[in-house]
Amino acid sequence: MQDIFDYIDQHATECVERLRALCRQPSIAAQNVGMAETAEMVVALLKQIGAEGQVLPTAGFPVVYGALPGASLKALSFYDHYDVQPPEPLELWHSEPFAAEVRDGRIWARGVADNKGNLVARICAVEAFQNVRGELPLNVKFIVEGEEEIGSPNLPAFAEAHAGLLAADGCIWEAGYKDTQGRPEIYLGVKGILYVELRTSGANIDLHSSWASVVPNPVWRLIWALNSLKDSAERILIPGFYDPVREPTPAELEALERMGFDEAGQLTQLDLPQFLGGLRGAPLLVKHIFQPTCNVCGISGGYEGPGSKTVLPNRAMAKLDFRLVPDQDPHQVYEQLRGHLDAQGFGDIEIEVLGPEYPARTAMDDPLVDVVVETARDVYGVEPVVYPLTPGTGPMFELCQKFGIPAVSTGVGNAESNNHAPNENIVIEDFIQGIKHIAKIMASFGAT
Amino acid sequence: MQDIFDYIDQHATECVERLRALCRQPSIAAQNVGMAETAEMVVALLKQIGAEGQVLPTAGFPVVYGALPGASLKALSFYDHYDVQPPEPLELWHSEPFAAEVRDGRIWARGVADNKGNLVARICAVEAFQNVRGELPLNVKFIVEGEEEIGSPNLPAFAEAHAGLLAADGCIWEAGYKDTQGRPEIYLGVKGILYVELRTSGANIDLHSSWASVVPNPVWRLIWALNSLKDSAERILIPGFYDPVREPTPAELEALERMGFDEAGQLTQLDLPQFLGGLRGAPLLVKHIFQPTCNVCGISGGYEGPGSKTVLPNRAMAKLDFRLVPDQDPHQVYEQLRGHLDAQGFGDIEIEVLGPEYPARTAMDDPLVDVVVETARDVYGVEPVVYPLTPGTGPMFELCQKFGIPAVSTGVGNAESNNHAPNENIVIEDFIQGIKHIAKIMASFGAT
Repeated sequence: MQDIFDYIDQHATECVERLRALCRQPSIAAQNVGMAETAEMVVALLKQIGAEGQVLPTAGFPVVYGALPGASLKALSFYDHYDVQPPEPLELWHSEPFAAEVRDGRIWARGVADNKGNLVARICAVEAFQNVRGELPLNVKFIVEGEEEIGSPNLPAFAEAHAGLLAADGCIWEAGYKDTQGRPEIYLGVKGILYVELRTSGANIDLHSSWASVVPNPVWRLIWALNSLKDSAERILIPGFYDPVREPTPAELEALERMGFDEAGQLTQLDLPQFLGGLRGAPLLVKHIFQPTCNVCGISGGYEGPGSKTVLPNRAMAKLDFRLVPDQDPHQVYEQLRGHLDAQGFGDIEIEVLGPEYPARTAMDDPLVDVVVETARDVYGVEPVVYPLTPGTGPMFELCQKFGIPAVSTGVGNAESNNHAPNENIVIEDFIQGIKHIAKIMASFGAT
Repeated sequence: MQDIFDYIDQHATECVERLRALCRQPSIAAQNVGMAETAEMVVALLKQIGAEGQVLPTAGFPVVYGALPGASLKALSFYDHYDVQPPEPLELWHSEPFAAEVRDGRIWARGVADNKGNLVARICAVEAFQNVRGELPLNVKFIVEGEEEIGSPNLPAFAEAHAGLLAADGCIWEAGYKDTQGRPEIYLGVKGILYVELRTSGANIDLHSSWASVVPNPVWRLIWALNSLKDSAERILIPGFYDPVREPTPAELEALERMGFDEAGQLTQLDLPQFLGGLRGAPLLVKHIFQPTCNVCGISGGYEGPGSKTVLPNRAMAKLDFRLVPDQDPHQVYEQLRGHLDAQGFGDIEIEVLGPEYPARTAMDDPLVDVVVETARDVYGVEPVVYPLTPGTGPMFELCQKFGIPAVSTGVGNAESNNHAPNENIVIEDFIQGIKHIAKIMASFGAT
């Protein structure tokens, strides 16, 4: 592989600039900003490496698809997404989120870690293979969706309609991050999610707060409703919520032990005295990896500006995400949530479902897992960390498990990549290593 | 008084335009917008009627003061304020909040009811008296502050320093509103207030919400803390909070009965099926007038934009106001709140006090009360409604009760004035009636 690695090193600057160009194009699905333009840019990138890039429509933002033939009969697919999280709060960024500034050996941009850096790394790996060897070691497919950050609402229907295009012997999933000790993390599954927005209302307009004596305040109702969902010991109070949660197997618990999670390093990085409830060691990891969550992503109501305004708000809103684990079902959780709020006297609280996704998991003894772990060990020169399940979410179930395709996630991020947060970034050296890792995965999986 | 009333009718347009000009000048104390410019406009208005308007500095926005001599030894003061509430949410206004548009016989502007309309009505009444009779029936003082909407933080010190300037036999307080049946309301006191901002924080940045499993969420902490302050039956749970609350006397309860509060009209106007807890009749009014509140004016944290963003926020904020009744003390309530949060395990929640004010009340048998009620009956042609206490707040204690000055509040608003809310307005006819009412109060109080 040294010939290909040399080629990648020689063309590092081109790869970085290709990535920066893609990052300079905003693509915020939640706000419908720049989506069509970005899909076209991805098509152009795929055409540059000889794939016939196609924009495949969905009921929402399209999926970009491209396939390339290779030497073996095997097919490896890459799942990525061209949409990014909203960049807010803007004032906390040290450089413009869509400027893709290079600083301190890193590229700083919304979406550079999640997930444009990985998409471009995979494209660059394919290109390197082609230019050095003349052909790819196996068939390659790119599946690049535009709605990952809003819960992939149209991907299930897309996958049903295009099962043939998706068929593969294995899938390299969207992303991976080095941990605080610099070890690449590899994920074999994802949590599911139920993302909802709760809305309450009171009088028909905001009122002078002197009316608070006798007029209902929707913010209070929202607080009481939320309080009924989870207690201050972090126990989720929705009846039946925990019932389908599968306990980790001994093999999975063993994988947790091998993770060598750097508690102190992580706490220092987040500037926290301790994790939730003072958890440490195995119980901390079991909760992080194998337990569902109920998180408030955002809350809003009334006057939020500087100083004081004595107002009785007439509307309030909260956005919640429940991260789900096998075998929880997001649709069932929605029913449980609705039933619970109704039973607690909050029938007036409106729930909008913004994204249900199933949890998914690839078996720890799948051959693709070995390929990704061994090549990572070789390229990065350290033992990678295998997560049986990542606490994050993605449509792995709909694209892979549903069709019996094993999926493993790896990528170019770092422990301070700040994805979904201000100052998202990747280290350029990680990006180059990531390209090499993908090249080696192709070679190795093609040879199995 | 017909000569003066005729003069007021003949000069109605001038008075309206004077008011619109003042409303076109934004003066948002909470956001430090246009404050100096507005103080200068008020000085100019006072100079126009021959008062030597002065800008008296405070540690915050200045007080505008002006005095005019009159025929009797008696002195009547007018308390008003030139600051207004922030205009947000802007999208709900039907015309620009600082355009002072005239539509359907009303003037629509932020601050037109609270309190610029009353200030200009009093100026116009003085002018009418001067131009028709050549002199005023009594000494008049204008005290126009610039921090009422942010809790008058510097008025106590101002009052201590300028007790001589404030000395008067009675004070006409800032505002009054017609009720849904068109009867002018007259208020003999105000609730006090403690306005606080609660702030919580978690990790040093917003995180991907997959971390919600093990990293504390400040929005949840805020929800639990707020939930500990008031239960869903509206009972405030802070120990000792209700102890100093003075029960209404039989005379005060009788005044409530005479109020003839239009429950159905008010509910229709607010588009509500019922008042809080289904209260009606005397218990509704007792709660509204004589009970303290704990209201969330605003809450904010995490992602509040459209669609979904899976984020674990690192900051959260809530603004609360407690409306207090005699003999509650805002400083004591702060101590109780701090102690309660500490005792409930929320010692990490920061409290910023944005405005403490004492409750105040003028005795129901004070001669000034008779003057204002009788002149209102005469000018408006209906029986006015006397509130022993208004559920709103103002620095009446600091400017009046502390110096033994009786204070009565009356003004030009209506039941749909939307003060502190979008589409604030007054009816032009009410404004003209209000000018006449003030003129008659001057004559009548001067003659006592």
